[in-house]
Amino acid sequence: MTEHVNRREFIVSTSAAALGAAAGRKVRASEQGVPKAFRSPSGTLVPYDREDLFRGGAQRSFSGPALAEIAFPLGGIGTGTVSLGGRGQLRDWEIFNRPGKGKVLPFTFMALWARAEGESPKLRVVEGPLQPPYAGGFGFPRSSAQGLPRFQGARFTGAYPFARIDFEDAALPVEVSLEAFNPFVPMDVDDSSLPVAIFHYRLRSRSPRPVELALAFSILNAAGYDGLARLGSEEWEGFGGNLTRVRTEPVGGRPVVGLDMTSTKYWADSPRSGSIVLATTHPTATARPVWEGRDWFDSFQKWINEFGAAGRFAERPPAEPSENGRSTYGSLAPTLRLAPGTSATVTFLLAWHFPLRENTWNREPEVKGQPLRNDYGCRFASAWDVARHAAERLEQLEARSRAFHDALFGSTLPAHVLDAVSSQASILRTNTGLLLEGQRFFAFEGCGDEGGCCPMNCTHVWNYEQALAFLFPSLERTMRETDFLVNTRPDGSMAFRTLLPLGRALWKFRPAADGQMGSVLKLYREWQISGDDAFLRRLWPRAKAALEYAWTSWDKNRDGVMEGEQHNTYDIEFYGPNTMMGTLYLGALKAAAAMAEAVGDPESAITYRRVFESGRTKHEILWNGEYYVQRVPSLQEVQPLLSASDEPWHANAVVDGQLRYQYGAGCLSDQLLGQWLSTVVGLGHVLAPEHVGTALQSIYRHNFRHDFYEHPNAQRLYALGDEKGLVLCSWPRGERPALPFVYADEVWTGIEYQVAAHLVYEGHVAEGLAVVRGVRDRYDGRRRNPWNEVECGSHYARALASWSVLLALSGFSWSAPERRLAFGPRVGEGDFRCFFSAGTGWGVFSQRIAPREGFTASVATRYGEVGLRHLHLANTPRWPGATLRSATGPDGDAITGASVRLDGNVLAIDFGAEVVVAEGQTLTLDLAQSKPA
Amino acid sequence: MTEHVNRREFIVSTSAAALGAAAGRKVRASEQGVPKAFRSPSGTLVPYDREDLFRGGAQRSFSGPALAEIAFPLGGIGTGTVSLGGRGQLRDWEIFNRPGKGKVLPFTFMALWARAEGESPKLRVVEGPLQPPYAGGFGFPRSSAQGLPRFQGARFTGAYPFARIDFEDAALPVEVSLEAFNPFVPMDVDDSSLPVAIFHYRLRSRSPRPVELALAFSILNAAGYDGLARLGSEEWEGFGGNLTRVRTEPVGGRPVVGLDMTSTKYWADSPRSGSIVLATTHPTATARPVWEGRDWFDSFQKWINEFGAAGRFAERPPAEPSENGRSTYGSLAPTLRLAPGTSATVTFLLAWHFPLRENTWNREPEVKGQPLRNDYGCRFASAWDVARHAAERLEQLEARSRAFHDALFGSTLPAHVLDAVSSQASILRTNTGLLLEGQRFFAFEGCGDEGGCCPMNCTHVWNYEQALAFLFPSLERTMRETDFLVNTRPDGSMAFRTLLPLGRALWKFRPAADGQMGSVLKLYREWQISGDDAFLRRLWPRAKAALEYAWTSWDKNRDGVMEGEQHNTYDIEFYGPNTMMGTLYLGALKAAAAMAEAVGDPESAITYRRVFESGRTKHEILWNGEYYVQRVPSLQEVQPLLSASDEPWHANAVVDGQLRYQYGAGCLSDQLLGQWLSTVVGLGHVLAPEHVGTALQSIYRHNFRHDFYEHPNAQRLYALGDEKGLVLCSWPRGERPALPFVYADEVWTGIEYQVAAHLVYEGHVAEGLAVVRGVRDRYDGRRRNPWNEVECGSHYARALASWSVLLALSGFSWSAPERRLAFGPRVGEGDFRCFFSAGTGWGVFSQRIAPREGFTASVATRYGEVGLRHLHLANTPRWPGATLRSATGPDGDAITGASVRLDGNVLAIDFGAEVVVAEGQTLTLDLAQSKPA
Repeated sequence: MTEHVNRREFIVSTSAAALGAAAGRKVRASEQGVPKAFRSPSGTLVPYDREDLFRGGAQRSFSGPALAEIAFPLGGIGTGTVSLGGRGQLRDWEIFNRPGKGKVLPFTFMALWARAEGESPKLRVVEGPLQPPYAGGFGFPRSSAQGLPRFQGARFTGAYPFARIDFEDAALPVEVSLEAFNPFVPMDVDDSSLPVAIFHYRLRSRSPRPVELALAFSILNAAGYDGLARLGSEEWEGFGGNLTRVRTEPVGGRPVVGLDMTSTKYWADSPRSGSIVLATTHPTATARPVWEGRDWFDSFQKWINEFGAAGRFAERPPAEPSENGRSTYGSLAPTLRLAPGTSATVTFLLAWHFPLRENTWNREPEVKGQPLRNDYGCRFASAWDVARHAAERLEQLEARSRAFHDALFGSTLPAHVLDAVSSQASILRTNTGLLLEGQRFFAFEGCGDEGGCCPMNCTHVWNYEQALAFLFPSLERTMRETDFLVNTRPDGSMAFRTLLPLGRALWKFRPAADGQMGSVLKLYREWQISGDDAFLRRLWPRAKAALEYAWTSWDKNRDGVMEGEQHNTYDIEFYGPNTMMGTLYLGALKAAAAMAEAVGDPESAITYRRVFESGRTKHEILWNGEYYVQRVPSLQEVQPLLSASDEPWHANAVVDGQLRYQYGAGCLSDQLLGQWLSTVVGLGHVLAPEHVGTALQSIYRHNFRHDFYEHPNAQRLYALGDEKGLVLCSWPRGERPALPFVYADEVWTGIEYQVAAHLVYEGHVAEGLAVVRGVRDRYDGRRRNPWNEVECGSHYARALASWSVLLALSGFSWSAPERRLAFGPRVGEGDFRCFFSAGTGWGVFSQRIAPREGFTASVATRYGEVGLRHLHLANTPRWPGATLRSATGPDGDAITGASVRLDGNVLAIDFGAEVVVAEGQTLTLDLAQSKPA
Repeated sequence: MTEHVNRREFIVSTSAAALGAAAGRKVRASEQGVPKAFRSPSGTLVPYDREDLFRGGAQRSFSGPALAEIAFPLGGIGTGTVSLGGRGQLRDWEIFNRPGKGKVLPFTFMALWARAEGESPKLRVVEGPLQPPYAGGFGFPRSSAQGLPRFQGARFTGAYPFARIDFEDAALPVEVSLEAFNPFVPMDVDDSSLPVAIFHYRLRSRSPRPVELALAFSILNAAGYDGLARLGSEEWEGFGGNLTRVRTEPVGGRPVVGLDMTSTKYWADSPRSGSIVLATTHPTATARPVWEGRDWFDSFQKWINEFGAAGRFAERPPAEPSENGRSTYGSLAPTLRLAPGTSATVTFLLAWHFPLRENTWNREPEVKGQPLRNDYGCRFASAWDVARHAAERLEQLEARSRAFHDALFGSTLPAHVLDAVSSQASILRTNTGLLLEGQRFFAFEGCGDEGGCCPMNCTHVWNYEQALAFLFPSLERTMRETDFLVNTRPDGSMAFRTLLPLGRALWKFRPAADGQMGSVLKLYREWQISGDDAFLRRLWPRAKAALEYAWTSWDKNRDGVMEGEQHNTYDIEFYGPNTMMGTLYLGALKAAAAMAEAVGDPESAITYRRVFESGRTKHEILWNGEYYVQRVPSLQEVQPLLSASDEPWHANAVVDGQLRYQYGAGCLSDQLLGQWLSTVVGLGHVLAPEHVGTALQSIYRHNFRHDFYEHPNAQRLYALGDEKGLVLCSWPRGERPALPFVYADEVWTGIEYQVAAHLVYEGHVAEGLAVVRGVRDRYDGRRRNPWNEVECGSHYARALASWSVLLALSGFSWSAPERRLAFGPRVGEGDFRCFFSAGTGWGVFSQRIAPREGFTASVATRYGEVGLRHLHLANTPRWPGATLRSATGPDGDAITGASVRLDGNVLAIDFGAEVVVAEGQTLTLDLAQSKPA
């Protein structure tokens, strides 16, 4: 141990390396189980059935043990959520301005009472059967109401924002299903940020006789709950003064009846102050606002006795507010009668209103404990107000949400891609996101079990996210405003996390090279999506400073390559040239050049392009023939280090004379991060295109593991055993550092989506689909919750990169400044349909190729409007001199003056003038192969 | 709702009742699945395969999902435990003087390193594969070491006190199994109360080449841990000054090497003060007392790098105590080399020493926070001291434990009965029990997740327990001393819970009728088991007062029937005559009469017998032809009530002019509780024998449910869905009260065992076995932990009634005063073997019947000695005038002077003088049918 210590410690010995990623069992379990694994056109192994991998159509459904982990979040942007469990139960009550994994409200459940004429009544909790374990030191918690009979089976299907459960019990005279949702209308922030969950219970008689029915929704009055305490009953010190009243109000011509749940315990300026409403639009109902009895099990026993016998609750005088330390349960029970062969829908609205939150996540004295007002708190005065609004607009909210659902799921894209794309769009509407006064969007990286993690608007994590940018661009723009107008210091360095409320202080940690460069790219994206020149001009000076900060820090010699200390999304610093930072830097330079020109600063544009060109060439020294590596500098080169930080998680890269946390010769999954982002925002290649494709293939080949049986990992565990997943890095040629960068051995869905989309963009479609499939198979309801991909917390924002897979598969791009809409389907281009969103409107793009006969394409707007001058179509028939047989405009009339030309593989249609396709309208093109004259 | 309100509220309507126990699905799933269900001799349905139900032999084993809930407790009486999980992991660290369900020590795991000559090394955590879910907001916890490769399969077999796991991984050059235990030697308190867990890892080569091996046991230095905090790493505010040293000491001629883990943070008088030792008796080992590296994942990464490469740890200079707020991890790695075809065992000892605990469970100021000293804290100075002691006596401790194991599991009793009996004997050695200074035993009812529940020596719950009484009678006697010498007030009323330390104050709540009467019966039992007249005389005056307290309270008219307010184990009060209290009272009277005579108080004996006879007759008014009911008095009759208590859980029986919490016309599973206990202690019948048998059959028929699909239960949930279990009460003839006694709809294993044993005693063997099987099928490793039956807490003492099933099946009884040992096998009497324990010794009773040839019986003592004058054998061939062919005494010589006679179905052998069968000796009898002259 005396000589060559440095070398020996830096590079682990061969035998230990053999334990690592390079080792593999002779027989891989996953291949044994997939006899139909196939080779992609590039010759790499894809461990799935090809047909299944490309299959479109219905979403997967879940039953039995696969229901266990399902928690489908119901809530709007910035409102928090309550989740629908796989069995039909409500779980994870996160409506109290904080995450609350595992938090349940006692005795909050739906019960069905059914009596076919001449038979005895049947009582069922409308939930599927519980799955083991049934453990619990005092038995299975009785407050789950598992003591009541329940259905024998349940099948869950989720197509965000809609969840559906089909319940089954042969002994009942009715069939029961549930559909639950919260309105989700891309680009409509108002309609997509309502603190409400809507439940449609559908009942269909299968009895030859009339059936009397009642559905009792029981709920704890949780006003005053802090979202943290583990509630086992109605007793909790934070309760008191809880009052539940039955309230009836005609809304839009029909009576709405509900339980209005309030508490008098907290002043209005307390974050604990608020209300909850459980309402129904059903015309007939009985209610028991406060269950009777308080000793032992009396109240639930009396509830069973009364509702079980008669399916209704007798009226009682109004209750008083509860005593201190207790709340109460209530039930609302619509009643109905079904004639043989008929069916009915009973709708419940669960609305909440907790307008204030406080900053519980920062320790900086300027912001710690400061109050913040939810946007919905400005729009509504109470939960009843929310419920009234939702009831009034119920049909419209549902129709618009369904329009989005249909546009997305009516696609021909592979079903598992739509699953990935849609399920993770829910992240925007969990406690990961905040929508504060004025519809300003802020976001954690993700959700800890009880608090956001980590605050706030983290530039490098949000580099990966694409869904907000394309679905709610106005909100994404507020993030750029925060980035540049708030967090960018005069020297151009950016605080890469945001302290709320704004304007009190900036976060003090060193800037992040990836986050900062990414922000410049994202500003370009927001400008391209919105076409808002004023917005660009307003932010440009700071964006320019942020970009040029690189020249005083990371790239002091302005050669287009970062050599300095590059703090990044792995929470450590890279040193020396690497293409992960490099491509973000190159992309930022390219974006900045375009923006500089647009704002009238051509000199900067020239400079940026010069640096870009230099960097583009110089990064090629990192090419090893297979992928791009990092050139790790010597210890002398990295000195002096920036001073140590007082962030407890941060550790210096140099310790005991060793430089640690680099990747060196490794194959990094993020090595083309900036290239991917540049492609997404429409900037094209920033590195040699042929190397990009090869590098992506190498990433797939080396980093996509078909199982994790032999993957020693000292780090965090996101994939285990027989699962498939893409590791962040591997060292296929050896030279794994003794202490590689933290997270190197982990599997992050956000990076998987980024790489998957990039593979698709570069034409490696099967590989891209396989990576997506690997993710979603890990989230199968039994292992993990399909609607919650985790990384450093639940509902982790990086997973919003999934949206880019849709962009890549549809070959979508949109430039509002140029009014240019582009598609280039990469799967099923002969008969293709896909959702698109273009700044001011969204809808469905479709194309159909009839060989030798014709080619039709259409752009149908389902919301807002899309104004376009150019339509570029790639992956169409490459007919020399194709002619436009017809172009039918939104008003159904022929568009005249449109020209078409084939530019490489792109069919470029120029309409000559802007064509506005408004909501409900369709633009149709019909091309024919030009006939030989 | 205007008339007959009382009646209507008391008796629920027919339609609601139809939702209750009386209703059933037309097709019971459980019968569909059991085509071999059969009718017992009494004609009742037994929903099991008969052959399987009676099967003896091997214990069930567990694999796959059935490993998930397994936690096999390793620890001695009053020492706390750490549990071996089904996969081989250590879980539920409860060695810190409190329960700690779910508490794990980070990075505490066993790893195997194996390198067959010429091959690359393999690293495995010695655990079976993880089962889903893999959820967790930050991934699956990395501190589980699930990031390392592990075995592909594990099969767990438990035969308390021994647990065995066979691991499987085809890729390894060795086979690996684990046997873990804590010494358990009935009647030897010293050897059964050691704070240690012993692990034998057995390695067998299956390689044709030599294999180098190392087993690294890694562990957090948890000295100073409070047993409460959820540890995710070595960082916790309670840590600091943690020091782990490698210590070697020759013990019994071999070196013992270990990690001695201490903390300097706490003074010796703190309950947090203590030490832990991980030691091995293996001759060669390397160790790393403190893992290196502290930032990010460095320490585990370095561990993998070093141990993974070489299977050993290089030496380092001794470490300093850890800084405040942190502890450290260490590893101890025995090394060995296996030649082809050879095997070896590597033994680890995990010892702990936390000598002090404090009363954290009482709020009474006299005792709250008071220190209590564990008995083991008086015997040992440190964990090293414990480890040395255990290492010195390792072979002996194991041999004696194995002798018990072999005596118990070598039985011909049905395997699932042995499973029930043995697994629940573990309760005595969990945190349910305390063994304080002077080997005084105290006990909670069970364990909450983080604290005992409820304190202490609760007389009514411990009425059901039999295992301690028969296996560790000296400890059981300390409970009687506490009952009578401490808790019995001058007026004869008993505090039915104990405040510790003793002598500070008595618990103030009203006495419990069942607990108080049961204590008199239990005193009789202890006297019968021990033959200790001095003990009886010492306790008798208080026992007499306790019995006669009935005459000033529950049975003021001394007619042998309790009419007054009878607080009981259901935590409510019964009013009016009922046989649950009644049989306990009758049994107590009968027991007291015998004890009065023995202490020279014949007048009391006469009085007690007179009251007994009166009561015995009068209780028959409660017979409804099928079972015994309760006569619920009118509201007027029960006035005045005792004053309300300030115990928060207690509720008065009368509210709103209604008497609640009675059972009335119900069929109560506990209706013969006192009869069962009387039978167990050898007092025979206290009610009409023909009614007893019929009532038990009725309990089985009405209360043993074949599934719980349609069992509406507002109470706690111990059986669900397709499970089978015995409910506490049912109302087969209707008249279910609107608010029956709390717990009426629950399923308690302690009562199931009580009823099962009683069914067997009364000859309904198949029904009894079915009830036991129902319990054990609910504890199948997937639903619940087989080594933890829960009621009001884990490891609930009532489940110790299971021991009575063994007593009943073997027909065992023992009267030390009369030196009379009795057996009467009720299963497989033709070839029968069963464990027995008789006060001063234990062993195996066996009998074999060869039709027409002969009958042999033997009593083999395996521990201590058994001195007997009489041996009574029931269920033998009833040969008129059978002759004793031979009686071979313990010394191998013939016993002369023995006589034999047939008394009913009992073959009574009188040896004329005491025959002492000492450890290792056997008494053998050989009988022949008398030949016609």
